[in-house]
Amino acid sequence: MKPAFSIGVDLGGTNLRVAAMHVDGVFLETLSFPTRRAAGRDAVIGDLCEAVIAIRERHGTAGECVGVGIGTPGPLELPAGILRRPPNLPGWDGFEVRKAIEDRLGHAIHLDSDANLAALAELRLGAGKIHAVDSLCMLTLGTGVGNGIILDGHVWQGMSGMAGEAGHMTVVPDGAPCGCGSRGCLEQYASATAIHRMATEMASSSHPRSGDLAARMEGDPNFDSQDVAAWAEAGDLAAQAVFEEVGRCLGLVLNALVNTLNLPLYVIGGGSAAAWPLFEPSMMRELRERSYVFRATELAGGKKTHVVPAALGPGSGLQGAAILPFVEQSALHEVL
Amino acid sequence: MKPAFSIGVDLGGTNLRVAAMHVDGVFLETLSFPTRRAAGRDAVIGDLCEAVIAIRERHGTAGECVGVGIGTPGPLELPAGILRRPPNLPGWDGFEVRKAIEDRLGHAIHLDSDANLAALAELRLGAGKIHAVDSLCMLTLGTGVGNGIILDGHVWQGMSGMAGEAGHMTVVPDGAPCGCGSRGCLEQYASATAIHRMATEMASSSHPRSGDLAARMEGDPNFDSQDVAAWAEAGDLAAQAVFEEVGRCLGLVLNALVNTLNLPLYVIGGGSAAAWPLFEPSMMRELRERSYVFRATELAGGKKTHVVPAALGPGSGLQGAAILPFVEQSALHEVL
Repeated sequence: MKPAFSIGVDLGGTNLRVAAMHVDGVFLETLSFPTRRAAGRDAVIGDLCEAVIAIRERHGTAGECVGVGIGTPGPLELPAGILRRPPNLPGWDGFEVRKAIEDRLGHAIHLDSDANLAALAELRLGAGKIHAVDSLCMLTLGTGVGNGIILDGHVWQGMSGMAGEAGHMTVVPDGAPCGCGSRGCLEQYASATAIHRMATEMASSSHPRSGDLAARMEGDPNFDSQDVAAWAEAGDLAAQAVFEEVGRCLGLVLNALVNTLNLPLYVIGGGSAAAWPLFEPSMMRELRERSYVFRATELAGGKKTHVVPAALGPGSGLQGAAILPFVEQSALHEVL
Repeated sequence: MKPAFSIGVDLGGTNLRVAAMHVDGVFLETLSFPTRRAAGRDAVIGDLCEAVIAIRERHGTAGECVGVGIGTPGPLELPAGILRRPPNLPGWDGFEVRKAIEDRLGHAIHLDSDANLAALAELRLGAGKIHAVDSLCMLTLGTGVGNGIILDGHVWQGMSGMAGEAGHMTVVPDGAPCGCGSRGCLEQYASATAIHRMATEMASSSHPRSGDLAARMEGDPNFDSQDVAAWAEAGDLAAQAVFEEVGRCLGLVLNALVNTLNLPLYVIGGGSAAAWPLFEPSMMRELRERSYVFRATELAGGKKTHVVPAALGPGSGLQGAAILPFVEQSALHEVL
């Protein structure tokens, strides 16, 4: 019998990535090219399917392809596979992505949102593997705040694939308006976009050192959230206060997730997770003060609640897509 | 083959109830007697086991007992079956309730917390049966706010049986202190205890009609949450404002639960759920305004998110306990 491999696809708003993965979890080949959004959906889906076919042919002589797993930006209605106003693919609202790809490839695919697949990758190849758990909840701090929930080894989809939107839990009831239509969502207090806004607000606030931060911004008007993190690390107290607020808001949401789901592992990923040392203290203080379920698991001795930064990098969505065909065929369980 | 029956036990802080249930979900017999807490744990467990043995003997000639299901106040550590500072059984912290009962009965039991079992009963015999769903989340508005989450037909326990504590999600970050050690929990804004406190606060607030409410309280100093509901129904605007706040806070928590879990059904039970017409408008307004997952399911046409009052009464905990042995043996699936 030929060794098994899968094909994973990460259909991002900026880049399209396609990879072949060996059953041991190692990539055999990865391709990355720009998502030609300006050329239209059909062109993008065409590029995607061509790459899948080409990569399958290249590896099909040495191995047996167990399936194609595809990740897209959310929200994605499942199992139908219809995009619902995806912020990262404007103009694709209502697009039947599953049907479009399956019609071209001529066979069924495995499909999920990128945030869910990043969580699945963390379970099988990252933090979940390290902690030897079967369930976890991941928050991805990027342009927005993504979320994926894995229960007993499988993505919890909810009834229509829209579970895992903890980024839109309310943390400040009368807080900043959110693109989702609500206000005060976690996404407005923990995403890269939010860090930029909060820093701007902090610079003109009554914080005793707001002037320092304002001066840094004047020197670098095109600053981004990573600059704010760098300033905080360099000792800027007002920038540090921004990340304390990020941590406090993450702690509030973790309190809700720990008290509701009582999972063994909560993972914080995405670009802003690199600022972990800046927000971790206030996040854990808020969680510990609020959640008696968290405190009970600290006392119990045996089963602790772990909150950790992601073990995988920005490629975890692609890894998760490639893992999906194995997971759904239970073929990965023995090797990972 | 003799028809199957189960035995259910609801070990409450005030009353101990034991029942035999036919496989069709109908009680064959129910017993209720006071929980002799003053006599100590051993006496209570003794009473419980004696009643189980007696009821099994009475029905054992006509039917076959499939198992004994027992509900206790939470928090209950599972699968170990150890009570963790249960507010309704003071002094029972650390008590190994599973071991105590199994040692006396001489066989394994099915065990869960009363809030989880009430949710299971709603799934199989109540609102879940009406809506033909396999997953739901129930909030029980009693002295506290209980919570049970059923996913794919089974109680979601979490890693140590402590899932389903959504009553301790934060709705007012700097709000009223809670017995759990946090502050601003839903329990402080939606329980019977909370309604009493909020009414008292409202009577001395700047609400334009606070004087009317204060006068009612003076006339009935021993008022309870049901009196506040009756006043609101009679047109007291300040009392109505209390239930608007209850609804707003329930809506905030439902937003978190809908966005995270995307379940088909959310059930509000417990004594204060009788005030449904008083809090439903603000609850649903808050949920609809905040949750784009909720709004998306309203649009989708097919799979809607339902929020409904409980279909079963205060006996749902006992019903859930009696159902548990059937559910765990998958024997109930065919008949209910």
